[in-house]
Amino acid sequence: METLGHLINGHMVHEGQRQQSIYNPATGAVARQVSLASVATVESAIAAAHQAYPAWRNTPAIKRARIMFRFKELLEQNATRIAELIGEEHGKISHDAMGELQRGIENVEYACGAPELLKGEHSRHVGPNIDSWSEFQPLGVVAGITPFNFPVMVPLWMFPMALVCGNTFVLKPSERDPSSTLFIAQLLQEAGLPDGVMNVVNGDKEAVDTLLHDKRVQAVSFVGSTPIAEYIYATATANGKRCQALGGAKNHAIVMPDADMDNTVNQLIGAAFGSSGERCMALSVAVAVGDATADRLIAGMQAAMSSLKVGAYTDSHNDFGPVITREHQQKVLGFIDSAEQQGAHVVVDGRHIEVCGHEQGFFVGGTLIDHVSPEMHSYKNEIFGPVLQVVRVKTMQEAMDLINAHEYGNGTCIFTRDGEAARYFSDHILVGMVGINVPLPVPVAYHSFGGWKRSLFGDLSAYGPDAVRFYTRRKTITQRWPSAGVREGVEFSMPTMK
Amino acid sequence: METLGHLINGHMVHEGQRQQSIYNPATGAVARQVSLASVATVESAIAAAHQAYPAWRNTPAIKRARIMFRFKELLEQNATRIAELIGEEHGKISHDAMGELQRGIENVEYACGAPELLKGEHSRHVGPNIDSWSEFQPLGVVAGITPFNFPVMVPLWMFPMALVCGNTFVLKPSERDPSSTLFIAQLLQEAGLPDGVMNVVNGDKEAVDTLLHDKRVQAVSFVGSTPIAEYIYATATANGKRCQALGGAKNHAIVMPDADMDNTVNQLIGAAFGSSGERCMALSVAVAVGDATADRLIAGMQAAMSSLKVGAYTDSHNDFGPVITREHQQKVLGFIDSAEQQGAHVVVDGRHIEVCGHEQGFFVGGTLIDHVSPEMHSYKNEIFGPVLQVVRVKTMQEAMDLINAHEYGNGTCIFTRDGEAARYFSDHILVGMVGINVPLPVPVAYHSFGGWKRSLFGDLSAYGPDAVRFYTRRKTITQRWPSAGVREGVEFSMPTMK
Amino acid sequence: METLGHLINGHMVHEGQRQQSIYNPATGAVARQVSLASVATVESAIAAAHQAYPAWRNTPAIKRARIMFRFKELLEQNATRIAELIGEEHGKISHDAMGELQRGIENVEYACGAPELLKGEHSRHVGPNIDSWSEFQPLGVVAGITPFNFPVMVPLWMFPMALVCGNTFVLKPSERDPSSTLFIAQLLQEAGLPDGVMNVVNGDKEAVDTLLHDKRVQAVSFVGSTPIAEYIYATATANGKRCQALGGAKNHAIVMPDADMDNTVNQLIGAAFGSSGERCMALSVAVAVGDATADRLIAGMQAAMSSLKVGAYTDSHNDFGPVITREHQQKVLGFIDSAEQQGAHVVVDGRHIEVCGHEQGFFVGGTLIDHVSPEMHSYKNEIFGPVLQVVRVKTMQEAMDLINAHEYGNGTCIFTRDGEAARYFSDHILVGMVGINVPLPVPVAYHSFGGWKRSLFGDLSAYGPDAVRFYTRRKTITQRWPSAGVREGVEFSMPTMK
Amino acid sequence: METLGHLINGHMVHEGQRQQSIYNPATGAVARQVSLASVATVESAIAAAHQAYPAWRNTPAIKRARIMFRFKELLEQNATRIAELIGEEHGKISHDAMGELQRGIENVEYACGAPELLKGEHSRHVGPNIDSWSEFQPLGVVAGITPFNFPVMVPLWMFPMALVCGNTFVLKPSERDPSSTLFIAQLLQEAGLPDGVMNVVNGDKEAVDTLLHDKRVQAVSFVGSTPIAEYIYATATANGKRCQALGGAKNHAIVMPDADMDNTVNQLIGAAFGSSGERCMALSVAVAVGDATADRLIAGMQAAMSSLKVGAYTDSHNDFGPVITREHQQKVLGFIDSAEQQGAHVVVDGRHIEVCGHEQGFFVGGTLIDHVSPEMHSYKNEIFGPVLQVVRVKTMQEAMDLINAHEYGNGTCIFTRDGEAARYFSDHILVGMVGINVPLPVPVAYHSFGGWKRSLFGDLSAYGPDAVRFYTRRKTITQRWPSAGVREGVEFSMPTMK
Repeated sequence: METLGHLINGHMVHEGQRQQSIYNPATGAVARQVSLASVATVESAIAAAHQAYPAWRNTPAIKRARIMFRFKELLEQNATRIAELIGEEHGKISHDAMGELQRGIENVEYACGAPELLKGEHSRHVGPNIDSWSEFQPLGVVAGITPFNFPVMVPLWMFPMALVCGNTFVLKPSERDPSSTLFIAQLLQEAGLPDGVMNVVNGDKEAVDTLLHDKRVQAVSFVGSTPIAEYIYATATANGKRCQALGGAKNHAIVMPDADMDNTVNQLIGAAFGSSGERCMALSVAVAVGDATADRLIAGMQAAMSSLKVGAYTDSHNDFGPVITREHQQKVLGFIDSAEQQGAHVVVDGRHIEVCGHEQGFFVGGTLIDHVSPEMHSYKNEIFGPVLQVVRVKTMQEAMDLINAHEYGNGTCIFTRDGEAARYFSDHILVGMVGINVPLPVPVAYHSFGGWKRSLFGDLSAYGPDAVRFYTRRKTITQRWPSAGVREGVEFSMPTMK
Repeated sequence: METLGHLINGHMVHEGQRQQSIYNPATGAVARQVSLASVATVESAIAAAHQAYPAWRNTPAIKRARIMFRFKELLEQNATRIAELIGEEHGKISHDAMGELQRGIENVEYACGAPELLKGEHSRHVGPNIDSWSEFQPLGVVAGITPFNFPVMVPLWMFPMALVCGNTFVLKPSERDPSSTLFIAQLLQEAGLPDGVMNVVNGDKEAVDTLLHDKRVQAVSFVGSTPIAEYIYATATANGKRCQALGGAKNHAIVMPDADMDNTVNQLIGAAFGSSGERCMALSVAVAVGDATADRLIAGMQAAMSSLKVGAYTDSHNDFGPVITREHQQKVLGFIDSAEQQGAHVVVDGRHIEVCGHEQGFFVGGTLIDHVSPEMHSYKNEIFGPVLQVVRVKTMQEAMDLINAHEYGNGTCIFTRDGEAARYFSDHILVGMVGINVPLPVPVAYHSFGGWKRSLFGDLSAYGPDAVRFYTRRKTITQRWPSAGVREGVEFSMPTMK
Repeated sequence: METLGHLINGHMVHEGQRQQSIYNPATGAVARQVSLASVATVESAIAAAHQAYPAWRNTPAIKRARIMFRFKELLEQNATRIAELIGEEHGKISHDAMGELQRGIENVEYACGAPELLKGEHSRHVGPNIDSWSEFQPLGVVAGITPFNFPVMVPLWMFPMALVCGNTFVLKPSERDPSSTLFIAQLLQEAGLPDGVMNVVNGDKEAVDTLLHDKRVQAVSFVGSTPIAEYIYATATANGKRCQALGGAKNHAIVMPDADMDNTVNQLIGAAFGSSGERCMALSVAVAVGDATADRLIAGMQAAMSSLKVGAYTDSHNDFGPVITREHQQKVLGFIDSAEQQGAHVVVDGRHIEVCGHEQGFFVGGTLIDHVSPEMHSYKNEIFGPVLQVVRVKTMQEAMDLINAHEYGNGTCIFTRDGEAARYFSDHILVGMVGINVPLPVPVAYHSFGGWKRSLFGDLSAYGPDAVRFYTRRKTITQRWPSAGVREGVEFSMPTMK
Repeated sequence: METLGHLINGHMVHEGQRQQSIYNPATGAVARQVSLASVATVESAIAAAHQAYPAWRNTPAIKRARIMFRFKELLEQNATRIAELIGEEHGKISHDAMGELQRGIENVEYACGAPELLKGEHSRHVGPNIDSWSEFQPLGVVAGITPFNFPVMVPLWMFPMALVCGNTFVLKPSERDPSSTLFIAQLLQEAGLPDGVMNVVNGDKEAVDTLLHDKRVQAVSFVGSTPIAEYIYATATANGKRCQALGGAKNHAIVMPDADMDNTVNQLIGAAFGSSGERCMALSVAVAVGDATADRLIAGMQAAMSSLKVGAYTDSHNDFGPVITREHQQKVLGFIDSAEQQGAHVVVDGRHIEVCGHEQGFFVGGTLIDHVSPEMHSYKNEIFGPVLQVVRVKTMQEAMDLINAHEYGNGTCIFTRDGEAARYFSDHILVGMVGINVPLPVPVAYHSFGGWKRSLFGDLSAYGPDAVRFYTRRKTITQRWPSAGVREGVEFSMPTMK
């Protein structure tokens, strides 16, 4: 059985000490083994990045960007293989995996614009014959720690921008599904990246803690759950590093009485159940304004959910696949149980799904729960499964108060035709990413991704314009040249030279 | 004797519990008393800011900016009084105090441009009929904690930008010289700021810790020494707040063999001794490249220093005044002693200065020390006094290695006529603010202020463009309107309406 | 009787050759005389500006901006006097004149941000050790030619931005009402502007043609009617000058069936009749979608117009005043007559208005015309009077086709509650300034003003960000320093110097 | 013999009316024939572009950009073929042709960043509940008219940016060497561009005038000689089109006494003789400050020029090739004759060069002329051949005065080590593109290209950031939603729906 190693200084490195199994969640079988890096291995990756830094930092931005142009081509040429690797270890259906890759490629495209993005500000004449300008210089070695749910896209949120800004990188992907991540890192080597500029270490907490404590690491980008994000942020900043740590979410959609209900239902189906709900931008709570609205919504969802197809990634007709592990499957089922016990009404029940030929897969069926209320366990926590809960309120203000009171503030959405409702909502909601009739308002790659409240720790959002600021340090130069130099002296000095 | 209170919700508030003396450092006598705020008082200030927030946040940016236009006028009209208050408690000579105020006013001028600075990015058609844009929304209540050495300028680095971005503010100025700070806050009220938007609490660690732990405070800006900056940063971020904490410095000037030596000496005199060296941008180390350069530099400095005038703020012919406290005076003298003991040569000795009529003042004379080396106590630490140390090296690279090895990275400078030397220096030096023949490269208000390494904790610099990003949260809206609405329905529906 | 002269090189200059009468349009009486500048006088103004240019161009932008800070204060302090001068010669009611001044002041406020606005773009390392950056340098002497309808606001669209960019200026205001323009130019001198930087010449075509042909004039900004704008643009560009020439308009509002009709009527009253309709952004055509909408609109407008008050500027209860001249009054009345003759229905007729005590004033009452169609004379042309015409269409698309077919494309608006209708409209309408439920969508001063089609000749819009680009020339510097200079040579050369 | 046609609506179109010969300038033989488009053919190209516009304009910018990503790949894959086609018709040596292509590709790379570049500015809350934002919308059909000297690069300055902004395009390349231009247009089709979006017509004045007068053409970009540029600009603007027309140049290098002479000579060789001097950025005048400097420069150039190799494009060891036509060859020789006759000293004489095996080629050898003075015919005019003239002056100021007095202001350069001289020069020289020790200061693709004075007619520079502004119209939307809509009405209206 294949054992995955680490990409360090341009080469695959294997280490025998500790290993862990990677499962195919559609079958429940072990697919591969992965080495878990020791402190020494992580340090060798950091050392490689540290050594590669000076030359890379001195490479003009346009040349760094051109490697990204080539990387984009290779990602596109290898799309099918990448989607397969995602499917095998994550369980995502191929169309979903291709979508993930496409969103990742958009970040590579954005990174191709590095020369424009890295421009500083120049001021002639800030004082008598004094000029001043700013430069955005790279930080040095930076690290990324990424989650299982987007093994390709989330790494691509980080390293393309970090690299074109002139940094070198050490990435620790999720140990659940690292194959696709490792594969794209190898494509980046093939695109012409010098050895050591990009390194990948597989591992667990030992690897993470090594990255968090090593003095050579200047910054850490993290995406994962809120408790871990909080730990990463506190530890990294206490160690003098720059850090942005993105955590959990509980994304609400307000459904207004004037919403186009067909459209709303269509949108919610994908946003709630796509990728088995294992997305930090999954739409997991629908807040219906008025019982009439709620009733129409429930009826529409129930009808639409009857044709949802759940199964293995190998059949592209499936809508979504299994969740990542058996433990997680049990956790999701537990949330449904608890909602029921606390008085909610399970309208569509995905707890007892059987996928023919994949009886050992970690499947949960699409689940719709009505009459959920804010004190319920299933409402307070992020379920990260294919479960849509409906809360009924009387007014839009009540709906907004609910959202603003939740500890998370990642994404949210409103379904309405009314310009005023949309504007009031987007202005006053305490959430970082807002959709107007768009249930999954993930910003495009040329904007930035960031939640509010306990969904993001740090000042700057991920990817897009904020990434430039995160992955660079501002340097401001103020310049005055003393006069009476060669310019004025010429006429006088010339005769003496003859 | 006057006792200073707190400005809370538009009113001066006094509290009897704890007080501290404010000294006139030129005489050594107590000038005033200042109340030290209790937890309850600080919380009432936070509460006032919290209550004032919603209305202020909904005020158009142009209206917030107009209060800054008016504030600028009032600062200019009251310049003499402000400079006096600085002089009485800090000891700064009037021309220096006026300079401080002027640099502060520049930040108010920059804040007047809020409508331009707060523009978000708008993208039509990010997908089929989908638009997306970003907004930079205020954070809520933010706090500032400022040092004694610039009681007017450093607060003005913070609150004008924080306020025009839509935040409300609680400021804790230094308890050593708070009168000028309180005075300008009152001018801001007079300029038309609504009650509670800006609050000032005097205090000590109790006040600071209250600000750091209160959940309503969203962000903290700090300027002070590195150990405190580190504490502030770690505590604020662990409490979920955004933080930027600016600390100490050890600013080196490289003097190249081709430098215009007259100009160099003139510049260094001001940069090393101005404001008694109590500036985080004070130029405290000159690194001479080559002994010939060093000898000419020492000779020039020695000559120029002979006419330095030290005394009380009331005489504008003085070049600089006392240091802030007797304790600090002793500390500075101790650094000079240690340098001498460790083998350096005190060329000009300011240890035994006597200022006629101000025998109890906390004076230290301008001091020049040659043959300083990197292992000396006086080299490793920030002296924060009127002491210039000279280190001799053989090459420019050696000079740069010295700077890059120091724990601080606030400001630095090179004196040369050579374009290539200047460019290499500014590119490769690990310092945030770089001067080319400019010894005090404080960025102008429309650029941003920030050191590197242990001179700044946080991602974003102070004032200027970075301040907009620090004092706002990014919100990204993605919008799609469902079709088949009033636009297309009109022709059909009209006949039925008749 | 007072005769107005010219402001040249800081002084009022009088010239006896040619004069013209200025009328008080509310009384029909001559208020003042104005000198009409000869070629020689205009050339002396250009010469003054040319001479003042080098020093002004070398003044740091922040210092130029500070004169604008002071200018703003003076405009505010003299607001009443400025409004009176506008009223006396233009006839605008005081609240309207104060509004005009306020919009003008906003442009002064924007100009205060010059240091930010003039920043160039800096790229370190565009190639090996090569840097490149852009600067936006001033043009030299620039001219402005402004219309009667906004004697204060339109000049303030131009010269504050032109001046802070480092240019010097010659302004030729309308000879119908130049007093307020001259007065604010004098306030600018008082604010500290050096002599010659800003000059005002009164005059007619002779003055205009002198400005258009003089080689020292680098750029011309014009606002007026389309035929003149076209002439100005063709002549200025043929003479090698940069030019932006803003012309006429025919601004349509689409009223959708779902519009809030009370709000719509309220908005239209001000937008159609304010300032007697003598605004290039006046809303002169309402396009009602569906007869039911049209009927409600007509009924609402008729009711609201019954309380419109027309009269002299001296009574602030009046809603609007006279038009500018007797000739123009006759022209406006002629348009109403022609509409009636071509089959439209004059619902509210302002042709026979009598203003008690001002029988000789140039008044036209508020007029509402229904059933207007595109082939009518009154539809094709800009009326520039207090006349609102209603066109009835069946669909929104028909309304948009009408707007897109008109030769002008200055402003337009839609009244609706529907997000999709608003978005489709703003995306596809061929008009430069678009309102959603905002009938007078004049961009705020920190955006830019510009129509499409025959409403603007030139590439760049007026004021705001585009003004920076219009009033500056881009200069791009590419820099590489030869190595082996003082930096590397030091170690070697030092011994030889001993 | 092959006859080149036109690329219209995705297909090659041939027309029999008028043809012209294309020469191989290295042999003097006819290489191909090219059709010259009639009015009708040009109009059919415009019609195709006009028809393709609505769908292209509605294509999201990211999708338009992705065609440019693919286009870049195809240009790189076909580089050798493109260089050959340039060589065959222009005579450029392969390394030079590859350099031209590379500079062109950089503009394609910049165009790939369209989504970032097209962002508008969004202001929330410009007034109570009012938002405002700008969009940069495409113009429609735009045209490009390009010169023989860069048949690939100059077209790539124009159409990639025009297209990603949403415009459709009609290109008229030089009829001297259109094959490479046509070839890359076909590659763009292959990259996935929809038919009609990009069209190429070959032709002469008839084609140009058709483009200048057709109402559907919204803008014209031109690069060529100054007299034609002036005609294009005047005609296009008089026809209501936006226009930028780049003309001739006379680029001076100042050589200062402190210049690194070896480096200076090396740089000048390439800048003066590369591409036979047929570049608008060719360095054609060296201004030596002081006779000693001049003598060293002449000696250095003479030595370096002795190894210059001139010949056919097929031998990559050649430094440069022939000029474009026999007529042009005679014109260049005439300038050398006239300089000699007017008293200049021809130091290195390229008039009698013989290239073995290419006796009929249009060659001129590298020529160096000393003691040139400003009144000479050869100084006043653009030679556009491999001729470097040296002017001797006494001071830097005299050198700058010379440059500032010339009618052209395209590029210039200074050779010095002195920071102050460089800064003074770049600040005060009246030239749009300035080099510091960079003799050919063509801005990189992410900055913009534009001369001053009679080198550019129009407000905006070519390519880079200015191209976005040139190829788009600003639209500003101001939006307020009426309240009391669905948001507030919900609670009340719900019961009635039951």
